[in-house]
Amino acid sequence: MLKIGLLGAGRIGQVHAVNIVAHPQSELVAVSDKFDEPAQKLAKIHGAAVRSSEDIIADPAIDAVLIATSTDTHADLLEAATAAGKAVLCEKPVDLDLKRALDCLARCEPYGKPVMVGFNRRFDPNFASLKAAFDRGEIGKGELLSITSFDPAPPPVSYVKVSGGIFRDMAIHDFDMACWMYGALPDKVTAIGSSIVDPEIGKAGDFDTAVTTLEFSGGRMAVIKNSRRAAYGYDQRIEFLGSEGLLAAHNVLENTVEKITADGATKAKPEHFFLERYAKAYQIEWNSFIEGVEGSAALPVTLKDGINALIVAEAAALSAREGRSVDVATEILA
Amino acid sequence: MLKIGLLGAGRIGQVHAVNIVAHPQSELVAVSDKFDEPAQKLAKIHGAAVRSSEDIIADPAIDAVLIATSTDTHADLLEAATAAGKAVLCEKPVDLDLKRALDCLARCEPYGKPVMVGFNRRFDPNFASLKAAFDRGEIGKGELLSITSFDPAPPPVSYVKVSGGIFRDMAIHDFDMACWMYGALPDKVTAIGSSIVDPEIGKAGDFDTAVTTLEFSGGRMAVIKNSRRAAYGYDQRIEFLGSEGLLAAHNVLENTVEKITADGATKAKPEHFFLERYAKAYQIEWNSFIEGVEGSAALPVTLKDGINALIVAEAAALSAREGRSVDVATEILA
Amino acid sequence: MLKIGLLGAGRIGQVHAVNIVAHPQSELVAVSDKFDEPAQKLAKIHGAAVRSSEDIIADPAIDAVLIATSTDTHADLLEAATAAGKAVLCEKPVDLDLKRALDCLARCEPYGKPVMVGFNRRFDPNFASLKAAFDRGEIGKGELLSITSFDPAPPPVSYVKVSGGIFRDMAIHDFDMACWMYGALPDKVTAIGSSIVDPEIGKAGDFDTAVTTLEFSGGRMAVIKNSRRAAYGYDQRIEFLGSEGLLAAHNVLENTVEKITADGATKAKPEHFFLERYAKAYQIEWNSFIEGVEGSAALPVTLKDGINALIVAEAAALSAREGRSVDVATEILA
Amino acid sequence: MLKIGLLGAGRIGQVHAVNIVAHPQSELVAVSDKFDEPAQKLAKIHGAAVRSSEDIIADPAIDAVLIATSTDTHADLLEAATAAGKAVLCEKPVDLDLKRALDCLARCEPYGKPVMVGFNRRFDPNFASLKAAFDRGEIGKGELLSITSFDPAPPPVSYVKVSGGIFRDMAIHDFDMACWMYGALPDKVTAIGSSIVDPEIGKAGDFDTAVTTLEFSGGRMAVIKNSRRAAYGYDQRIEFLGSEGLLAAHNVLENTVEKITADGATKAKPEHFFLERYAKAYQIEWNSFIEGVEGSAALPVTLKDGINALIVAEAAALSAREGRSVDVATEILA
Repeated sequence: MLKIGLLGAGRIGQVHAVNIVAHPQSELVAVSDKFDEPAQKLAKIHGAAVRSSEDIIADPAIDAVLIATSTDTHADLLEAATAAGKAVLCEKPVDLDLKRALDCLARCEPYGKPVMVGFNRRFDPNFASLKAAFDRGEIGKGELLSITSFDPAPPPVSYVKVSGGIFRDMAIHDFDMACWMYGALPDKVTAIGSSIVDPEIGKAGDFDTAVTTLEFSGGRMAVIKNSRRAAYGYDQRIEFLGSEGLLAAHNVLENTVEKITADGATKAKPEHFFLERYAKAYQIEWNSFIEGVEGSAALPVTLKDGINALIVAEAAALSAREGRSVDVATEILA
Repeated sequence: MLKIGLLGAGRIGQVHAVNIVAHPQSELVAVSDKFDEPAQKLAKIHGAAVRSSEDIIADPAIDAVLIATSTDTHADLLEAATAAGKAVLCEKPVDLDLKRALDCLARCEPYGKPVMVGFNRRFDPNFASLKAAFDRGEIGKGELLSITSFDPAPPPVSYVKVSGGIFRDMAIHDFDMACWMYGALPDKVTAIGSSIVDPEIGKAGDFDTAVTTLEFSGGRMAVIKNSRRAAYGYDQRIEFLGSEGLLAAHNVLENTVEKITADGATKAKPEHFFLERYAKAYQIEWNSFIEGVEGSAALPVTLKDGINALIVAEAAALSAREGRSVDVATEILA
Repeated sequence: MLKIGLLGAGRIGQVHAVNIVAHPQSELVAVSDKFDEPAQKLAKIHGAAVRSSEDIIADPAIDAVLIATSTDTHADLLEAATAAGKAVLCEKPVDLDLKRALDCLARCEPYGKPVMVGFNRRFDPNFASLKAAFDRGEIGKGELLSITSFDPAPPPVSYVKVSGGIFRDMAIHDFDMACWMYGALPDKVTAIGSSIVDPEIGKAGDFDTAVTTLEFSGGRMAVIKNSRRAAYGYDQRIEFLGSEGLLAAHNVLENTVEKITADGATKAKPEHFFLERYAKAYQIEWNSFIEGVEGSAALPVTLKDGINALIVAEAAALSAREGRSVDVATEILA
Repeated sequence: MLKIGLLGAGRIGQVHAVNIVAHPQSELVAVSDKFDEPAQKLAKIHGAAVRSSEDIIADPAIDAVLIATSTDTHADLLEAATAAGKAVLCEKPVDLDLKRALDCLARCEPYGKPVMVGFNRRFDPNFASLKAAFDRGEIGKGELLSITSFDPAPPPVSYVKVSGGIFRDMAIHDFDMACWMYGALPDKVTAIGSSIVDPEIGKAGDFDTAVTTLEFSGGRMAVIKNSRRAAYGYDQRIEFLGSEGLLAAHNVLENTVEKITADGATKAKPEHFFLERYAKAYQIEWNSFIEGVEGSAALPVTLKDGINALIVAEAAALSAREGRSVDVATEILA
């Protein structure tokens, strides 16, 4: 039974808490948060103690920590936790600044502790099925990957300003999916963006709608479409064209009911947002982390994976800003 | 080039006329109708002559006739046309009265002329694909066939009164499909009906909604659902459960557009009625008739098939009236 | 916090145990089973005690029992538990014998304790959505309900012999759905059956494939198709034709992935069987039971509902045996 | 009755011939082709004369010509035909060279004759339905248009070499769709391409897989995905994200049959290629041309539309070559 400390009692921390408690090999022993009330509330529900993040990390009785705090604290906590011998599951992104993230990687690696980044979508049973079918060669060689990733509604502009922008905050998930599908970093990244949904987002220096194309070695491509607003909910789809066919993961709908009248045939909308759509994915993610920590399987998402997605985000942001393709090796990695 | 006489210039006659004209091996030379105006109009469009049915049948230069007149004239015209050496494509049903239809069969057969009954649904590319897959053994042995067959709106009560009732007029198509799928007549027929759509239909002694179950040898079954009203259009579907899987032919929709908004995801309705849904089927039906007459393939629907469907209709009507299963061999055929 | 005793530690008992434990207002305190090993195992997982059913029922500290034992014990346990002042959730059916079930109802009612029968399908989010849409009048008046209910594989013949037959054991769920949809018992029941899947089932006096039609007041109808074998898994669908349209609840598929190759476009099969398909339904069922016991909502399925479904099953069995429609009021209820 | 001369008796000319003949207001009087045999064959089928293109254009008895010859002759024939007072329907593209196409426009316009470019996809009932729904405001303001356009198999490299490249030959249809949907030319064009399907295509200086993004005024975007090979057939889809929802036009499948077995649920592939998928579109296109020529409706696709699509193709080719966004106003139009 692994003793777990949860750093961060916000929306996503609460989701993880339920899965930590439900897992037969993990036990939630402590919760921290910069605000006392959510920490107390979450701790009470699950019978855990409220402690500071420092205190939790310093406690030798705690085996692993889950970092679900604000992004600006991720790198520091990762370094402290690995130094203290903890296994870590850290929410994405590692940091908004690539250099800082690379430093973090360099500092964490020597401790050799299991560190996983929370790219939840890899654990979605639909995307995982698609990836498995692709890996079995069911569509031959991968040629053109397409990811549709729309949020139901834009965040407040105040959030946008500290988010790192649409590429580092939102598209980073899709960049991870693309790197995961192809098993590689792209060579070139080209992005365009606009603020057609909310001009205030544009004034804040960000985009709310973007299209990014990725060029991988051997002529393989990916195209990622992002919008901060889909009036019908959370649109999360993947299509992968290969030499022998196409794989598509469609949206998960709220239910299977169809109504047919003189006005047409109506089915349910997609699941509203990530908490609904990825509920199962978060649970499988936690199971995978536990397996990785216990050594029965490799950790499926590494800290390096988290940094790779950030590299693509950095390149996309630069590309959209300058209206040209960005070469990852010479402009971002060098 | 076969010279064709078309008997009946109504709605269905007009459909056939287009296909006769478009076929490279057939030529529409004459049209008859009990009303002069539609006959003149149709003849003019296609450059044919208006003549009486008797005259057309008696003309040795005409190779084949298509009977698309009112039901009560079918048997007489079939007999006259085969006696005159014509090949015949006759709209369903042969007659509303089984005994009369059997007499007709007995009188036509000796002439040995090609006679086909117009069960258009057999030629629908979707149903034909399903049948072909079934015949290839793709779902193993057939066990439970389900047919959904709803019209968009009930006919006028005046039509209902002369129609022969829902089983002989409407379900007869579905009975033919069931016999065709299983390649057999059922042993037992059980039907229930109500007039929930329009009580006037009930007062006229008919049903507007009915469910018929058919039992074939070896425990094979079929269930047929009929309604005179589907607010969303013409609902024409087949499902066939076999020992190794299920085949389903879904509706043909008006188009492939889907709209997803906060209210759900809406697609088009099914094609509105038989003229739209079965336009292609009528064309293939005519091609098959020509092939059969020219001897390059067997006629796919015989006069006997037309009578078999009527036998099932007769049994269903009796069953619904008496609230019990009807044994086809002892109660209808004997 | 309600203290719960679970009677029966088999497959379905284990499903319920997880939901009892996960619910914030219920606590699993005791488990019984006729075999010691499964009881010990289940009790250990959830930290409950192993006790006899009698002991659990007699314990005044236990608020409610969940009866998940073999069918032949349901009625006795229901009577004992209600007499002892317990709220009860009892798996279907109440009893295979209608008379015994009616006696049980008569004996339980005077105690006025909450008793719910476990018709899990009412709690499936898809079927519940369909019902809610119907109740909102979205398709007008209900006219023709169709239920498809196929199991993935037939049970062993040894089970068939004690099951009460396909109508009381399997179709009873569908009969409940039909009565629930229309809010009424049918007036007439007509069923046909065969043993085409496994002749041994026929030798045991049962059917493995059946079609039942139900006639409700006012000409409303339902048709229920059952098969003990669908090679592709658990087929659980509902279609409801109303005066203004059609509602359909489609199957829940294993995932949303589609593969398109030269061989066609392939999607996943339906969820394999009831444990997968109805996992969410069992959870909602338990939530509803707790709400009903705590008085915050009416119990959604009563003991009377359980008996109504049995009445229809009785009529269907008689109809299939005698090849005729059965009048519920005069032949079953009288 | 309009007398029509058909220039070009190849594959697409044959499709048009059938529609010309079937239309009640048009009559096919003459056919030309650079090869005698196909011209003779097509003329014979439809009862037309074989003549030279020059002769047809010079004949005052001929009202309109349909140009379905090889691309390099389009501009010359367009100029000659309009000068001779003919209405013209010309297959796309006007010319592979933008300057030549602009000259052609300048020369044709003064004659004021009806000239339409054959962008058949605008007439596809599915895409036309989507456009109509968009124009009715059903998804609010258009924000992000996505077009998937894959051919079943790459053309021979010999064809690729004279085709003008993937952007001018294949994507030009999609560029027209995008301009049509937004009612505008894009401001900026960014494209990437590779020759992953067939390296020989790359050696010939072309791409077989490409992604093009278009930026329209006000932050509106489009993304177009092209591949010369989809193993499953012709993939032709549109998705349009707007401020209030999404419109999607899905593929047209070969039939509606679904087979569900232990291996999953399989439906038909999309229609194989443009002759099948756009059969109906070609017919509607011809109807629209006749209406435009007779003045009962405006011509739905002008020569200017044909040139606009070419402008985008030019920009895309330049962008893909140089790895940067191309400004249409300053780099292509100036």
